[in-house]
Formats: sequence, structure tokens, C-alpha cells
Amino acid sequence: MPPIVSLVGRPDHGKTTLLEKLIPELNRRGYRIGTIKHHVHEFAMDIPGKDTWRHKQAGAHSVVLSSPTGLGLIRDVSRDTPVEELVTRYFNDVDLVIAEGYKRLALPKIEVFRNALSDTPLQNRDETWIGIVTDLKQEGEIPHFGPDDINEIVDFLISTFLKPDKEQHISLIVNGETIPLNSFVQRFIAKSVTGMLTSLKGCQNPKEISLIIRRSNNQVDRL
Amino acid sequence: MPPIVSLVGRPDHGKTTLLEKLIPELNRRGYRIGTIKHHVHEFAMDIPGKDTWRHKQAGAHSVVLSSPTGLGLIRDVSRDTPVEELVTRYFNDVDLVIAEGYKRLALPKIEVFRNALSDTPLQNRDETWIGIVTDLKQEGEIPHFGPDDINEIVDFLISTFLKPDKEQHISLIVNGETIPLNSFVQRFIAKSVTGMLTSLKGCQNPKEISLIIRRSNNQVDRL
Repeated sequence: MPPIVSLVGRPDHGKTTLLEKLIPELNRRGYRIGTIKHHVHEFAMDIPGKDTWRHKQAGAHSVVLSSPTGLGLIRDVSRDTPVEELVTRYFNDVDLVIAEGYKRLALPKIEVFRNALSDTPLQNRDETWIGIVTDLKQEGEIPHFGPDDINEIVDFLISTFLKPDKEQHISLIVNGETIPLNSFVQRFIAKSVTGMLTSLKGCQNPKEISLIIRRSNNQVDRL
Repeated sequence: MPPIVSLVGRPDHGKTTLLEKLIPELNRRGYRIGTIKHHVHEFAMDIPGKDTWRHKQAGAHSVVLSSPTGLGLIRDVSRDTPVEELVTRYFNDVDLVIAEGYKRLALPKIEVFRNALSDTPLQNRDETWIGIVTDLKQEGEIPHFGPDDINEIVDFLISTFLKPDKEQHISLIVNGETIPLNSFVQRFIAKSVTGMLTSLKGCQNPKEISLIIRRSNNQVDRL
């Protein structure tokens, strides 16, 4: 399950605008990002008139649009889905999930606050507030950033949530080519293979594992 | 995994229009329907300008809109997702999945054909063609229906895909109220509970199971 951080703050203080700047910089640094918009008003996502929209309007419970490049799902639910369930179900192949909302949950939070629009930041901050993005000069004792400090905020997100596990390094070479792996896939492969092997005699405390798999048709997969 | 049936046919012969009529009638008869639109062109599902649309445009890999009544997911994929994977992942709580497209897969198919628009139905029909909906008087030897024979088509879908398992009947009464259960949930509960119990001595061949669960706070759940 990837880590999750939530952007909180009063409406129109720039949460979505900040996200629009953070995502490209995180992408540029090689991270795959998922987002969640938590919304308590009427649900609308599809484009009116499209076939999938017509399916849903006709009363389908769940509608999927599937193409070779994108996939869309729109479905009924009977309750507000817990954020952990969303992350487990829909974000198993991203490195970091950034949510908008969920002010009341015990998730790590970064507040977005524009002094020009409101006198005071959110009240009742607790230890889940890990940072604030604001045009105020100084605001409390948690790390604070200006609304345009995109590089610094991304540095902070990476060091807080995406710090590489220095104890573990994985290379995958297939047919002589090194395969780039994002941190989720690295963790997944490392944990799965290590777990599988440690039940074998003599593999209880592996410091380094080399695994070479030769397929019967003489292809070589090297791990 | 719910059963799946695909509506196939030339473009604009009325697949979506037929679906729009079938879904309400299936709902009226108590069935929960999922749909898949298979699409090989540019992917577009969200409403331009919405926060989730902005997240995706900024480069998010997966975007979720979560509300108490509806849930939407839009994500990148790197290949055309196999239909079985879609059904397993996204349709575990519907009774029947109706797809548009997938003409070349070995799924049960119903062809939608309007003679007014084209001379001949699809060629290369095989044994996966289980029916045809057409304005032609007679078309081959498979079951055929007129475009407005909604009741008859729904009867056919139910008898082909949703025939109740006459060997199994389940009632759930909670706090004295009978809880309506769709056929998926019935199967799920029946199979889970039966499976759990048959490992107990004396429960190897249960013909009827009555289970009463009293919670410690004196609530009664009766199965």
C-alpha cells in the first residue's frame, strides 16, 4: 500500500492548483502519483451523452470504459468509502497518493492557506499536520513553504514519504537490459522473492540474493 | 465472478439504445447490472475543468473521486485490459455484466442488427453467438428478438445467465426484518458459510443450515 498525504484547507485556498504543480515535478523525478478527491456533494464524473454515461443513467450499478491507454470506472456505493479501502483497491501501482480533503482523518496533512483570503488557518491542528503551504511569513513550528516553492515541497514529500529504503536495493536485468523499476515494484519484488526464499533452509537471513532464471527456450531472466 | 454477455454489431445499429432499455427492466426484476464499453480510440471520461480532471491533466496516474453515493476511477493503463480482469476487479458485486464490443473474444454474444441500415449481419458467426436482436423477420437458427421485445430479451438473459440455483435458498433476518439479497450476495454468503462449516465434524453434507448469532450487546443476527 503506497503512502498517503492529504492536502487540507479552506475552499479556494489553492489545494488543486498546488496539486497541479506538484504532480508534474514528482513525475519528473520518476514517481507515479495517485490522487483522491473527497466530495460530499452530488456525484458527477462522466461526460453527458457518451455511451458510458447513458449506461449509468439507465441504471447500471457499475460502468467501465476500457481502452488500450486508459480505464474508467463509475459505480454506485452505499457509503463513504474509507480512504484505506480506496488506496488498497485502486492505488496498488502508484508510489504516493495525494488526497484533497479528509481533514478529520488521522492522515498526514499539509495545510494550504492563503492569508489574503482568510484571517486564520484551520483550527484544531494536531500532530497529523506535517506542513503548511502559505503566503504567511511564519506559521507555527511545522515546516512551512510558499505556494511557489514547488521544488522544496517535493523534496519534503520525497524525504517524508518516498525515502528509498537504503537497506534494500534491487536490479532487474532481462535479456541483458536493465529494467527500470519504480519504488512500489521494487518493494513488491524484493518482499515477495525474499519471503518466498526465507522459508528455505540456509536462507533465513539473506543479505544479498542473486537469482538467475533461465527459461527452457534459452531466454535468460536475471534477478 | 458474475456472468458476462456482449452486445455486438455494426456501429449505430442500436447497441447502446438496447442496453438503455434492458438495464431498467433487469433492475425492475431485482438484478444489479454492470456494463463495459470497449473503446479503441482516445480515452475521455471526466468532465473538463473539474478538480479530478485537473489532477489527471497534471499527470496523475490514477485519480479517484469518492463520495457517499458514487465512486469514480480514471487511470492510465499500458495495454488493453483483458475483459476477465475487468470483471474480476470491478464487478464483484453485480449479477450480470453486459459489454459493448469484444466481437472477437469467446464471450457469449447477442448481435444487434438493423436491416434498414445494412444489408447483412456480421459475418463469421460462431457458436458464441447466442441470439440476435433485429428488425429482420427471421435470421438464422439462433433465438431472435425484435428491437422492442425488451421483456422477451430480459427473460432470455435471465434464463441463460441468471437462473436461480434451485438447490439453494437463503434467508437473512436481522433484528426481525428480512433483508433482501441479490443473487450474488446470496451465493457469496451461502458458499462462504457452508464452506466454513463443512470442515466441522457432522457438517459434511449440510442440507439445511440455520445459524443464529447473538451479539454481546443483545442484538440478534439470524441467518
